[in-house]
Amino acid sequence: MLILGIDPSLTCTGWGIVSKVGNRLTHIANGQVKTYAKATLPERLVTLDRELTDVILLHRPDAAAVEEVFVNMNPQSTLKLGQARGVCLLAAARAGLPVAEYATRLVKKAIVGTGGADKTQVQAMLGVLLPGAKLAGADAADALAVAIAHAHLMGSLR
Amino acid sequence: MLILGIDPSLTCTGWGIVSKVGNRLTHIANGQVKTYAKATLPERLVTLDRELTDVILLHRPDAAAVEEVFVNMNPQSTLKLGQARGVCLLAAARAGLPVAEYATRLVKKAIVGTGGADKTQVQAMLGVLLPGAKLAGADAADALAVAIAHAHLMGSLR
Repeated sequence: MLILGIDPSLTCTGWGIVSKVGNRLTHIANGQVKTYAKATLPERLVTLDRELTDVILLHRPDAAAVEEVFVNMNPQSTLKLGQARGVCLLAAARAGLPVAEYATRLVKKAIVGTGGADKTQVQAMLGVLLPGAKLAGADAADALAVAIAHAHLMGSLR
Repeated sequence: MLILGIDPSLTCTGWGIVSKVGNRLTHIANGQVKTYAKATLPERLVTLDRELTDVILLHRPDAAAVEEVFVNMNPQSTLKLGQARGVCLLAAARAGLPVAEYATRLVKKAIVGTGGADKTQVQAMLGVLLPGAKLAGADAADALAVAIAHAHLMGSLR
């Protein structure tokens, strides 16, 4: 089973794919979709949709897991992130993937064991859980963490 | 020239199409995309994307205008609206339409003459500007107002 994790953002959306066979996880790929800050918002959303759809068509994942977002930021940032997140959810669901959503704390708890873990701890655990995986960046790392969290939690939540 | 106006919302997105020939505006069509409240968020976004795309394929508008949104609401509502709005912007831009965005106050000012106009005043002016147009609902009316605002303002803003 291939799981696609997504960490949505308008500027840089992370994605990561892990394979789950029984309890064994393997890294398949990860990357980041960056959109041009000077492009219009609709253009940036089209880039995000197209690149995520390309990833889905290339790797054919069986399920997607998307990070839930903090809303304790200023409203304009929440709106911007919401717009990018809507496109991420759409790209996965339109491709026929079941889409799960996970709060950041739950992801950290599934990976490191505590919801208050910082980025360094999450990335260190990624090195242990997915040895040899070369990370495209911090957002791709977060996306792999969401995919792993889904692999761990999907049985228990359904 | 056909202009598609969109008033985004997760529950009920309004759309409306007007034809502009010189200074003459004609109502073409309007409607609302409602999504099932008990469906998952990704499913609702897929419905919104599919129905808006159907409208675009059927009517082949030349341009789209999308209402900008208030962010003075609670963060969860802002996020929800942002996700729906991202899908609306994407559907129009992916179809190759130039997409303009208008603040609600600017739309009201273009239609009624004052940015503080209420919904009743806007709908009354719609009856004058697009005689015979049968409104699918309040959100469709708002969408037609955005399309008309774009017809009035596009020259002056470009």
